[in-house]
Amino acid sequence: MMRPPAEIGIPLEEVESPALILDLDTFERNLKRLADAGRRLGVRLRPHAKTHKCPVIARRQMALGAVGVCCQTVGEAEAMVFGGIDDVLVTNEVVDRVKVNRLVSLAKQARVAVCADDAGNAEALNAAAAAFGARLDVLVEVNVGANRCGVEPGRPALVLAEAIAALPNLNFAGLQAYHGAAQHIRDFTERRSAALSAAKKAGATKALIEGAGLPCERVTGAGTGTYRFEPESGVYDEIQAGSYVFMDADYGHNLDEGGGAVSEFEQSLHILATVVSRPDRARCIVNAGLKALSVDSGMPVVDGDEGARYVGASDEHGKIEFAESRRGFDPGERVRLVPGHCDPTVNLHDWIVGYRGNHVEALWPVAARGAF
Amino acid sequence: MMRPPAEIGIPLEEVESPALILDLDTFERNLKRLADAGRRLGVRLRPHAKTHKCPVIARRQMALGAVGVCCQTVGEAEAMVFGGIDDVLVTNEVVDRVKVNRLVSLAKQARVAVCADDAGNAEALNAAAAAFGARLDVLVEVNVGANRCGVEPGRPALVLAEAIAALPNLNFAGLQAYHGAAQHIRDFTERRSAALSAAKKAGATKALIEGAGLPCERVTGAGTGTYRFEPESGVYDEIQAGSYVFMDADYGHNLDEGGGAVSEFEQSLHILATVVSRPDRARCIVNAGLKALSVDSGMPVVDGDEGARYVGASDEHGKIEFAESRRGFDPGERVRLVPGHCDPTVNLHDWIVGYRGNHVEALWPVAARGAF
Repeated sequence: MMRPPAEIGIPLEEVESPALILDLDTFERNLKRLADAGRRLGVRLRPHAKTHKCPVIARRQMALGAVGVCCQTVGEAEAMVFGGIDDVLVTNEVVDRVKVNRLVSLAKQARVAVCADDAGNAEALNAAAAAFGARLDVLVEVNVGANRCGVEPGRPALVLAEAIAALPNLNFAGLQAYHGAAQHIRDFTERRSAALSAAKKAGATKALIEGAGLPCERVTGAGTGTYRFEPESGVYDEIQAGSYVFMDADYGHNLDEGGGAVSEFEQSLHILATVVSRPDRARCIVNAGLKALSVDSGMPVVDGDEGARYVGASDEHGKIEFAESRRGFDPGERVRLVPGHCDPTVNLHDWIVGYRGNHVEALWPVAARGAF
Repeated sequence: MMRPPAEIGIPLEEVESPALILDLDTFERNLKRLADAGRRLGVRLRPHAKTHKCPVIARRQMALGAVGVCCQTVGEAEAMVFGGIDDVLVTNEVVDRVKVNRLVSLAKQARVAVCADDAGNAEALNAAAAAFGARLDVLVEVNVGANRCGVEPGRPALVLAEAIAALPNLNFAGLQAYHGAAQHIRDFTERRSAALSAAKKAGATKALIEGAGLPCERVTGAGTGTYRFEPESGVYDEIQAGSYVFMDADYGHNLDEGGGAVSEFEQSLHILATVVSRPDRARCIVNAGLKALSVDSGMPVVDGDEGARYVGASDEHGKIEFAESRRGFDPGERVRLVPGHCDPTVNLHDWIVGYRGNHVEALWPVAARGAF
């Protein structure tokens, strides 16, 4: 692990760049808003830890009432359990032989659940659980619209649920019904409609399974873009929002009922960068490129400055162009960038530098950075 | 740092995925080919370590005659010096106060040079060097066509070179003249022409500086896409190719004289992935997404299988679609992916798994992973 880019107590302008910086006041407001919304909506929260990969943040979420966290890999789940979280759902299929063993070992140390969409995989999970004397909760992942992993809703899900329930070391633990693509539908009504369509498929599948005499103890899913909608259906027991803690430029493009940008969560995370070159009046180069931020969902945005546009990233350089009316930034000036996509951006850093006002208050290790 | 995804001696099929795997025979051929070309072309090699971030590989390059390595960040330079490399050029501007101090400290432990394109930055470097009792080699970065960092060729470069030479703790050490954008011009003639245009600008600037009585001890630049061309000019003393050790899908699109794909270097690096889901006949999902590979320069390519296309990446998932005629891959099957862009992909991993034939022979730490 790399050295931290800051010391506790120093002013923000002395933080080494590039660095991931977190406005703790804003971050805490985001945490509280989702916790309040969960209570209002009558659903449990199981925030997704793939966003922050940081057990310190996961424990904050638990302290505000979350029942556990979601992870996307076994390595993340290990980091969370070893960091003090006792209830983890791996919202993914685990197939590699060594990873199946790691998962089953972890299930002897904490409450661990995993998803499956294939009977052969369920048998492999059962064999490993038997070998370790463990019992593993397994949810059937249902394709509710994302067309990624998952069996089709209805009968295929029932068949797999029955197969899992018949295996002695597995417990059929419900349905994973997450519609990833729906999170970023910009229009409010269309986004709600996609979420409710997913909920309808999940609900019909749950009814079919329970009608066949198999208890379906939970339906889990939803994200930062849709968590307000799935609970309307009465089908979802848990919501899995992750990005709400930090937000990013991509989520910032989602629209609310009135057609304005969504505002329920605020941007708490930035990449702090330094201008390293000012070759001419129209552009400058900052020291945050592809190895400090992810451009998969678009370029980062210069915070609070519409006259400056981050237009291109190479390995260690970011190019910012200025509107003609602007004076631009000179070498040594600091720039705050809103990441295009927070999850893969956080995964490029070893430390989250938490600040309050203008001073560094916390240095949190991204313990599951690179944890497959 | 994460645990390695393999043990020495195991067969490749037992390596945990996703993992960076390196075919050592192919890798060694690539190393030797550039070393041979350098001798044939009469230029020194200073390979770019930003590609591999691995001192083990840097020492292999030195053993074949490289005079040192290039780095893009101070953190990379530290990892290289502490890993046994005694000559490092930081091909970038270093501006952050703490990073300037780290650079100057390093210059007391090894031969370290850095680039500058601003007189104020040169003064800051000089002040730090004076405070530590160090002398620092500084190259003037010249914009030879990339329009990123760098002063303009000719007089602006001379003015900065003279300013550097006048500072007591700095040594004006030559010109950094790298044309990044030229590396990926597909057409052979156009690529050569861009490289020679860069060389012409560098040559004229060198002549101007030497005409003013200032020795210009080296001109350094070039990359995997253009290293054959710059030496034609007689201007370049050093070439900085980096990607040639691994190659990637983006470089694989460059064309040679005959219009075929370039073939002087071979793909030695892959991402080993496992199929975790096969929801239908037309597609499968692998466990290598945005956190295992970088998509900034396009999607990865399924190695040796034109009927299978990697079409989309989310955090931990990659979607592969099959041509109708193909049987596709089933859960548990392994897939080798050619990364779209090798440098930021390597930076997502803690280990390079080296194999020969079908067995793991080496586990090399990516020591400068995340090193800003």
